Parts: sequence; structure tokens; C-alpha cells
Amino acid sequence: MPTQLDALLSPASIAVIGASDNIHKIGGRPIYYMRQHGYAGTIYPVNPQRETIQGIPSFPSLDALPTVPELAIIVVAGDAAVQAVKDCARLGVQSAIVIASGFGEAGEEGKRQQDEMVRIARDASLRIVGPNSQGLANFGNGAVASFSTMFIEVPPQDGPVAVVSQSGGMAAMVYGLLRSQGIGVRHVHATGNQADVTVSELALAVAHDPDVKLLLLYLESLSDPDTLAQAAAVARARGVPVVAVKAGRTGAGQRAAASHTGAMASEDRAVDAFLARHGIWRADDAHALARCAPLYLRGWQPSGRRLVVVSNSGASCVMAADAADTLGLSIAPLSDATQAALAERLPGFAATANPVDVTAALLTNSALFGDVLPVVADDPSADLFLLDIPVAGMGYDVPRFARDAAHFADNAGKPIAVAAWQESVASVFRAAGVPTFQNAADALAAFQQLTGHQALLRTVAQEPPTVTALPSRAHDGNTRTLSEAASLARLADAGISVVEHALCRTADEAVAAWRGIGAPVAVKASSPQVPHKSEHGLVMLHCNNEQTIREAFDAQTRTLSGMQADCEGVIVARMTRGQRELMVGAHWDPTFGAVLLVGDGGKYVEVLRDTALLLAPASPAAVGRALASLRIAPLLSGVRGDKPIDMEALCRLAADVGRMVHDARGAIASVDLNPVMAGPDGAVVVDALIEVTGQS
Amino acid sequence: MPTQLDALLSPASIAVIGASDNIHKIGGRPIYYMRQHGYAGTIYPVNPQRETIQGIPSFPSLDALPTVPELAIIVVAGDAAVQAVKDCARLGVQSAIVIASGFGEAGEEGKRQQDEMVRIARDASLRIVGPNSQGLANFGNGAVASFSTMFIEVPPQDGPVAVVSQSGGMAAMVYGLLRSQGIGVRHVHATGNQADVTVSELALAVAHDPDVKLLLLYLESLSDPDTLAQAAAVARARGVPVVAVKAGRTGAGQRAAASHTGAMASEDRAVDAFLARHGIWRADDAHALARCAPLYLRGWQPSGRRLVVVSNSGASCVMAADAADTLGLSIAPLSDATQAALAERLPGFAATANPVDVTAALLTNSALFGDVLPVVADDPSADLFLLDIPVAGMGYDVPRFARDAAHFADNAGKPIAVAAWQESVASVFRAAGVPTFQNAADALAAFQQLTGHQALLRTVAQEPPTVTALPSRAHDGNTRTLSEAASLARLADAGISVVEHALCRTADEAVAAWRGIGAPVAVKASSPQVPHKSEHGLVMLHCNNEQTIREAFDAQTRTLSGMQADCEGVIVARMTRGQRELMVGAHWDPTFGAVLLVGDGGKYVEVLRDTALLLAPASPAAVGRALASLRIAPLLSGVRGDKPIDMEALCRLAADVGRMVHDARGAIASVDLNPVMAGPDGAVVVDALIEVTGQS
Repeated sequence: MPTQLDALLSPASIAVIGASDNIHKIGGRPIYYMRQHGYAGTIYPVNPQRETIQGIPSFPSLDALPTVPELAIIVVAGDAAVQAVKDCARLGVQSAIVIASGFGEAGEEGKRQQDEMVRIARDASLRIVGPNSQGLANFGNGAVASFSTMFIEVPPQDGPVAVVSQSGGMAAMVYGLLRSQGIGVRHVHATGNQADVTVSELALAVAHDPDVKLLLLYLESLSDPDTLAQAAAVARARGVPVVAVKAGRTGAGQRAAASHTGAMASEDRAVDAFLARHGIWRADDAHALARCAPLYLRGWQPSGRRLVVVSNSGASCVMAADAADTLGLSIAPLSDATQAALAERLPGFAATANPVDVTAALLTNSALFGDVLPVVADDPSADLFLLDIPVAGMGYDVPRFARDAAHFADNAGKPIAVAAWQESVASVFRAAGVPTFQNAADALAAFQQLTGHQALLRTVAQEPPTVTALPSRAHDGNTRTLSEAASLARLADAGISVVEHALCRTADEAVAAWRGIGAPVAVKASSPQVPHKSEHGLVMLHCNNEQTIREAFDAQTRTLSGMQADCEGVIVARMTRGQRELMVGAHWDPTFGAVLLVGDGGKYVEVLRDTALLLAPASPAAVGRALASLRIAPLLSGVRGDKPIDMEALCRLAADVGRMVHDARGAIASVDLNPVMAGPDGAVVVDALIEVTGQS
Repeated sequence: MPTQLDALLSPASIAVIGASDNIHKIGGRPIYYMRQHGYAGTIYPVNPQRETIQGIPSFPSLDALPTVPELAIIVVAGDAAVQAVKDCARLGVQSAIVIASGFGEAGEEGKRQQDEMVRIARDASLRIVGPNSQGLANFGNGAVASFSTMFIEVPPQDGPVAVVSQSGGMAAMVYGLLRSQGIGVRHVHATGNQADVTVSELALAVAHDPDVKLLLLYLESLSDPDTLAQAAAVARARGVPVVAVKAGRTGAGQRAAASHTGAMASEDRAVDAFLARHGIWRADDAHALARCAPLYLRGWQPSGRRLVVVSNSGASCVMAADAADTLGLSIAPLSDATQAALAERLPGFAATANPVDVTAALLTNSALFGDVLPVVADDPSADLFLLDIPVAGMGYDVPRFARDAAHFADNAGKPIAVAAWQESVASVFRAAGVPTFQNAADALAAFQQLTGHQALLRTVAQEPPTVTALPSRAHDGNTRTLSEAASLARLADAGISVVEHALCRTADEAVAAWRGIGAPVAVKASSPQVPHKSEHGLVMLHCNNEQTIREAFDAQTRTLSGMQADCEGVIVARMTRGQRELMVGAHWDPTFGAVLLVGDGGKYVEVLRDTALLLAPASPAAVGRALASLRIAPLLSGVRGDKPIDMEALCRLAADVGRMVHDARGAIASVDLNPVMAGPDGAVVVDALIEVTGQS
């Protein structure tokens, strides 16, 4: 499918405004790169001072070009850059990359100039990358509209990976890490200030490139989640894994990001939930972003997480087992037949259990890895293979080890990773095409990612997300709370199970309500102005006689009037005994829409913070997975003689709350239900606080 | 202080039994290494087949040597190795290194031979390293009694680091990682099967080496914790940091270790507690063991954890801030004066807040790092400095950056770490003597370790551990439980606050006890045969009238007699209301002696597992630090209107329990107190179960 951004990624002609004859200057380097990497289109240097630039005829202005270029690289700075955008717009150039810094990231005047550029461009359907962009590079066609020095440091090679990044530095880092692994990279794109074109848009464009097999993203802001969701959907359909760093995970990082790109923060767990919902694996930094590439690119689909470790060091065996356990990989129990076959091949003093220590005998028997690997490969309980070689080199037949590992990688149909701690050893394995890591921790982290990402994608396939663009997610910030009675009514309207209760305007009504319930009740004042009742003494529990109820009514209405708060009356509610107090919350996030929170409830919810977040609408099954991630999860299934909680009712209740907030499209700002009493026979909302926006 | 092991580390003469002329054979390599590294003592090759070995006169047997060597390297295998040990013992050789494998790690026959070697050696005061050892290497004097190929792969250089490892592979790995950082290494010792000499003993010996500034250990078993404690004490007194990997952290790792060296497992948290108690930092693997070396070796003592990040990439700034936050480092808030000074030096569009992004302007202004670093160095709120350079190379004046960083490192008196993602850039910084890491995550992990280790050592200095050797810590495994009444009595005898209660042999006594208490009571059967009463219906709470108490007495004695269990009577105990139910436990560990456990208590203690472990005896302050690490810690200081718990009473109670188990020297196998009721006015044991050993 062609995309709007074709002129950026595959332009037939490129003008460089501010072109330089010096290949080390920003205006010189793209021209140098394009000629070096076989760009077949036309290059138009624009520089009024020169006849030729790097041997190509130069033009005094954009107007002087023989044809209108599809792409303009704008190297000139400040007002000249704004003028260049105007010229592009006037002439009908389709796309421009603004390299210069000093715009949106640099104060009011820069921001004004940036806004002007965007306005001009939008009017002319001109798409702009940047400003403050390192540029875009497509090694598939040689359109290297980038000044990154990394393409000099590490020679480019076209390949199956696409890197799309808000930051030029990050794009270069990831490119460098991939190339040092011997991996070819086709796309290296940096969007800079993202005044117009975003990472998400370019991700969507390159996800359609049939040669791209892996998509790596770096995001600081996420203004267009719907576009990223589309990109993820295209990639999933093509079997292309997407891995993303979304920086600004922490408060410190968010402050740094605000200073770097003016990025606005959502709660970071909402970012986690969004990426997971769309099958995007989240990484923490450049190293983690590139790390798993060699495994992804083999296309392996391991059937489980059971690991076999083969090493020539017993200590490496022990540490790998520790690390595997910590990462949620298990050490595969080898069958008796496998162990018997290993015993025939290993030295007499070596153990045949997994991890498999071939011992220092490897020094004298270079066939050991080649002998052992096919045996363990055949064991049905083995899914993943780590060949950990802490020490080799002179005296070792490393080329043979590499051939044996490559043969396994090509034939076993199961993933193998080599940890080679010496670069001289690692390079031999890499040259043989075997995924190679510089230590076992990295190799095992990559296995954890491969298997974890696979599991995530299976979940997403079972419940594909709907990609529906929400017109605008921000509300005006004016919110008001509903009273307890109104909150409970709103929930009941949505079909959500709430405690048996009545809103009573007189003491007589309260007594009648208690008689109707026929059991101990709670009496709670209901006022939209007093959302937090306990701290004002506006809740009385375990009331079970007329006098107490009358006293509670009088005291609470008196207190409210003392606070000059509207009094709707009191709620008389059945005292509910649940096995566990849980909490269900939801709110409207300006980026992601409805966000649902489930967790341990009760008085200490903010202190103990045992909660999980997911995007709404969420299925009851998704709520169940979120609840299963809580520390209290074991208690829900019944321990120490307790009956199991009715998970179906609890999950449905939380899913319905998420759906309600989603369907309100911003009219409900937040819902806070604590406790939700959950027991073997159902779940019911006991306390509710809903906050609505001015729109509702 | 000279140690028993001098003959191993600084022998005046060395015999090689099974010497080879081939420098690539195990019997040839040590001779080659010793001559290459200037060993000044006498080398005696022993090989009956040859006149000379590597140009040195060879001898047909140990008996034929002109003098008795101080050290014998035994390369020959199997029975020949046992015979060589016999010969050494007979001739009065002081120490031997047995290289050959196939002994204790390889089945019954090997184990028998190993035991025989040890018996012979002990009788003759001969110390043995190995068998299954790669050997010892001392580059301070050229006594390289090791066959590691790593000394060929990476040229040795004497230096301030000592590596002592149970595993030869691990010793080589760590050596290789240090040398690739340009760090000199003096000691590289591997103990193999540790039939006699242990890692702890060698650690103690090298801790006395005045040139050693950093001690790195790899342990799979820990049979002699008291010796390791002594080594740690010597190192602390000399200001030498000790970092250790104790492999077998997890169940999977422990199984692998058992197969590798037959190591027995303690609970891993006890290992954590032991290492922390002695100021030893615990690392997870070889990479983590070596990682912080460049920082340690500068001797920096940062005054806090406030980090300044300087980078030429905004994305690196954001990710470094995220990573710092996650690791418990904070981003230092720069003063107005610092920011004003930065504004003078940075390009106009750059922000002056921390992290400091010098932007791509670094390409045209090579002075930027040198301009910025002294300014931030002077800020009083800045403790740690990360210079993160994701992209440099051609066009960048990297040598100048390195000079500027080196100047900072030499003059600022504060730690600096460089993250240089390209090896070509990193090598320039390393050559300038600046601590250099291959990515920011590694650099920040090293800062976390430096500051964390420093804090740990401060705590240890405040409460230095007593190093008292316990004769034997194992008991015979025969244990019996005390009844509740006997358990409570034992605690009360030790001065520990227990619930007000009485053991009652008749219903009348029970009623009288209740009247004496004058408040609701719990009635609990007391029998040494029924440690877990609740599940048999042998606990009745909230009894507050005569009839209930008589019924409880009758029912419980009837139940016990139905179970054919001894009945001591029932305990009548005051119902205690505490603010929080906690648990205090202690047990006797065969390796570490008394171990204390504190945590959240109540019914779900095994499920929620919010506990912390420490070695006993522990001070109340140490207990307080352990409690502060719990998830429920915020609740103890009083939240949501609760009063703070009486921490002094709680900590003293737990410390007393630890002291009691410690003083019993194995006579008490375990103490399980749950709940301990803690409130604003004290802490009291409500339920107690003590298990004693046959010795008591």
C-alpha cells in the first residue's frame, strides 16, 4: 500500500537547500551519502555561491531548478529555513526535511517560527520532517537525506531492520549497535521536533516495506497513538515484530523529556498498557532496543521457555541457571535418552544433566559442541539453546565451534544464542551467522524478550484491538464530583452491581430503609461537595437499631450543613461482607482514552499500591490477567481454607466500569470504587465516587 | 602479616610434576608463563622422559630434585596424582596445586581418591589447591602456576586487582573483562574442588597484599564463612572493597552448582545477609563482578547519589534520567548560579537544566565538554557525573574530550563515568585513564554499586560484626516441637514480651484464669504433638463467659484425646488488639548460625511473603532497617490516621528472639512467632512455636 509519505522515503528528486561542497558539513554530507549509496534519482544542490557542488551542477535558488523536486532538504537555519519552507510550498514540493535546530525546542521565538512553518506547509499539503531533525535515510534506494556521522563510522549495508526515532542520536546509536552485530539496516529515520511528521506515521509507512522484518522505535512523546496502533496492526499482519523505547518512564525522565522535546506525560503504566495492547514490546534503552534483533531476524518461534545451557565452564552453567530462573525461563529437564546419549559423548567426569558442562575437555576435543548440540536439539522438552563460551581462543578450534553452532541454527528449527565473552571469539560466530551476545545475561535477556513478545502477540491475536480514532481526548479540565448516591445510580444504570441501598431525605426514610433491608446497615452522608466522607465523620457502620440510625442521620446532616455543603440526604446501605476488599478505578487519559485500574482495596490502597492498569475497553479475560499480576493474586484463588473469589463476576464488573468510561468519551473524568467487595458469590460496589467533566 | 599460604602465593621454588616441552600443553604452560612474567625463583620440571623442558634441566622424579620445592604443580592425573601428593607429603613440600580433573566432581571413585589425597596432605601439613583447579597466578612475582589460556589471549599486566574464584573459567572471564578495560590484575586464583584450600582462605591471604586495592570473589559453596568474614575484616581495615558472586541464587542455579562442585545450599537470602553483614557487595555474574572496578580503583568517596548527566544527545539525557531514577540515583538540581554559568557556555537553544544536553553543537565546538564539566563539578548538589556520548567519531575531537574528562577525573574530587557506545571512542577515553563504560546502563549500574557499597560499609563500620568461629553449626536433624505453653515460657524466660496467659489443666482453672484476666480471652489447646492448632479447631477466640470457656476446654481436650496427642491443658490468653499483625521467626542455619526473619504476619504470611532476613545476633537498629525494607513499611509509621507503631519495642523483641537462637548454639532449631501484635504501645507475642534439637 503506498502511503502519503512516499515522497519522503522514495523521492524521485531531491533538492538540498544550503548544499555544501565539503562532505563533512551538514549541507555536504547527504549529497555525499546519496552518491555513495546509489541514489538513482536526481540531486539538485541549491547554493547561490557555487557553480557545482561535489561535481554536480548547483542552482542559485529553488526557483531555478529545471523541475520541482519531490523532496527538499533544508539545511539553512532560522528565517532562511522558514523562507525555504515558503518557497517549497509555493512551488508544490511534496515534502521537506528541516535539519536546523533552534525552533520549537528553543524558546518562544523558535516556537513561533516553527508554528509558521507548519501553517505554511499545511496550507500547501507539504509534509515536513523536523525541524531539529538529523534526517531520513533509506539504504534500500540510496535516499540518504541525513547528516549522521554514524554512516561514516560504521559502513551502511541495506538489510531487514527499520529504525524510526524522534531523536537523531538514538537513531544513530541503534544503527551502530545493529551494524556492530553485522545486521543490515534499511531505514534510519529521525523526526526531531515532530512539528508535522511523527514517528508513528513513518513507522506506519515503513511497516509496509516488504523487505522490513523488524521495526525499532524511539518515542519521547506519543501524540498520535491511533497511527502507531495502525502501524502495529500492519506489522502484526506481516509478522514483523515492533519494539519501542518510550522514554520518560520516570518522573526524572519525564522532566528531561519535557526539556528535550516538550513531551507531555501520561501515566507511564498507561504507556505500558497501550504498547502491550498493540503487541509492541517495550524496551528501556538503546542497548535493549537492539539486543534481540539477531533472534527476531531468524524468525524462530520457540514453543516454550525451557532452556538448555551448554558451556565449557561449570561456573557459567551455574550462573546461567540463576539468570534463567530470574528471567522466568526454566531449565529444561532432559530425558533419560538424551542424558544417555550425552554420556556417550561427554568426558567421563562430566555431568549429563542440563546445564551441560562439556568441561575444559573442549580444549582437546574440538568436536564436543558439535557432538552435544544435535543430541540436546532433539529433546522434546528443550525450546531454547544457550551456548556459553566464557573462554576460548588460542588452542581452541573456534571456527569449528562456529560451524557446529551455525549448523544447529540452520537445521534444528529451535533458537540458539551464543554468549562469547571475547570479541575475537564472538566475531567468528557472528561471521557464521549465529546470533551472538557478549555475555550470558544479554543472551538470556534476548530469549526472555523473544518468548515474552511471542506470548504477548498470541494474546493480542486472540483479542485484536480495535483501532478507532477518537476525535479528541482532552477535556477542558473542569470537572465536578457526583454525590455517592448519584455515583451509585450511574453505575447501576450501566448494569454494574452495587450494594443494596436507598437515598433517604429524612430520618424516617432512613429507618424505613433499614427495616426494608432487614440487616445491619451503613449510614453515609451524600453530597456532591464532600467526596471523601470518612475523614469528616460522615460514615457510620454496623447500624442495626432505630435510635442509632436516627442519631446518625441527625449528626451527618448537621455536619454537612456546618460545612455549608449541599445535603441530598443519607445513604442507608446493607453492610456487605466480602472475602476481600478490592479497588476498581478508571479515568480518561488525554492520550489513550479510557484507562482501567484494578487492585487490592481498602484503607491502605495508596500506600500498598498493589494495582494493575489496562486500557479500556478491556475484556473480562484481560481484567483477569491484570488481577493475576497482583501481589495478592494468590489470595483470590482461595488459600488457607478460603473459598475462591468469584472471578467471573469481579472481572465482568471491572470490564463494565472500563466500558462505561470508554463509552462516555471524556464525559466521565474518573471513577473510583473502593471497596469493591469480592467473595465466592460475586462482587459488589460498596463505595463509589464519579467525577464528570463540564461536557456532561 | 604472613599467612599459611605464602608457599602457594610466593614460593621460592616450584616443581612441575608432568612438565611438558610444549607450551600449549597443561604441563608446559605454567613454565612458559613463569619465565615470561619474570618469576625469580627456581623452576624444577619433573618429567622422566626428557633431559630438558623448555630449555630448563628436567628431573626424573621429585626425589631427584636438588632441594625440596615449596610448591608442586601436579599435572599428572588419576592414581599418578595421588602418588605425587604422597611424594610431596613424604618429602616435606609445603603446598601443591592439583590440576587434574576426575576426582570429587566425578563420582565415587574420584571422591575416594580426593579424600585420600586430603588425608595424606593433612597428616604432613601439606596444603592442597584443587583438584580440578586451573591453578594460581601471581603477576606480582611471576609465580604463574596456572594453565589458563586467557593469559595468552590478553597479555597480563600486574595491577591492583585480585580475583579469587572457585571456578577457573570464571577467574579467566573476570581477568579478561578487567584487562579489556585496561586494568592491571595481580592475583588470578582458582580453587577448583576446594578439597583443602578454599576461596575464603586465599581471599584472606591476598587481602593482606599491600598492593591489592580491589578483591573480586566467585563462590559456589561457602563452607567456611568465618574465614571469609576475617578476609572481609582485613579488607575493610585496608579500605579494599570486596565484591562477590555467590552462584546458586535460585533453585535452578543450586541444582547446577550441586552438579558442578557438590555445593550445599543455604537459603539464598541468608547468603545475602551474611555478605551484607561483612560489607561484601554481591554481584550476579562475571560482567557485574568486574563492572565497577574502574570506579573503585579511583578511590572516590562520593558524598551522595545526586547525578549530573552531560551528553551530546537529548535522547540519552532522557534515558539516563529514567535509568538513574530506577536505580535509586537522583538527578541533581543545579543551582541558579550553575545554570547561569552553563547558559554562557551552551548554544542558545540548549537547556541548562540537568541532564545537560550540549546538543550536536559539539560537532562544531569541541570545547563544550571542557567548558561545561568544571561548571557542574562546582555545584554543591552534584555528587556523580555521567558523560554519555552515544555518537562521536570522525569530525569530533575525541582526544580533546578525553583530555577534558581526564582533567575532571583528576581534579574534581568527584566520580565521573563516561558512556562511550563506540569502541573506537571508548578506547580513547580509557587510554586517558577515565572510567569508561560501553553504555549508560552499565555506567549507572556501576554508580549505583559504588554508592550502595559505600553506604553498606558505613553501616558495617557503625556496627562491626564480631568474627567468632562457631565450632559446628549442623545439628543432627532430629528436632521436636515444644507445646504452645512451653514455647511461650521459653520466650518469657528470655525476657521477651508474651501475651498475658495461663496454662490450665482443668475447666475450673480455665474459668479462674479468664476471671483473673478480666477481659475476653482466647482458649487454645497446648500439646507438643499438635503444632498447628487452628486447622484442628483447637483455637477459640473472643471467649467472655464461663459457659463458653468450659465448652471450649471440653471440646479441645476431647479433640486432642481423639488425636491421641498428649494434652498439657489449654492456654487461656488475653485477646490482644494490635494495630498490625507481624511475624518474627528465627532458625539455625548450618552455615551461618542464627538467622532472623521479620515481616508482615497473619494468616497469609506464606502467600504474601513480605519478609526480610538478617543474621543474628542483630541490633534493634538492624532489625529496624530490615523492617523498613518491607512493602508494609509505610504502615508501621502510621498512615491514614493510624498512630505509629512502637518500633523500639518491636525491634527489641525481634532482636531478642535472634539473640536467643544465637545463644542456644543449635539447641533451638527454629522459632515461629505469628502473630506478634504491634501497636503504638508495644509489641507482644501472641502465638509461638519453638522447635528444639535432640541436643536440648
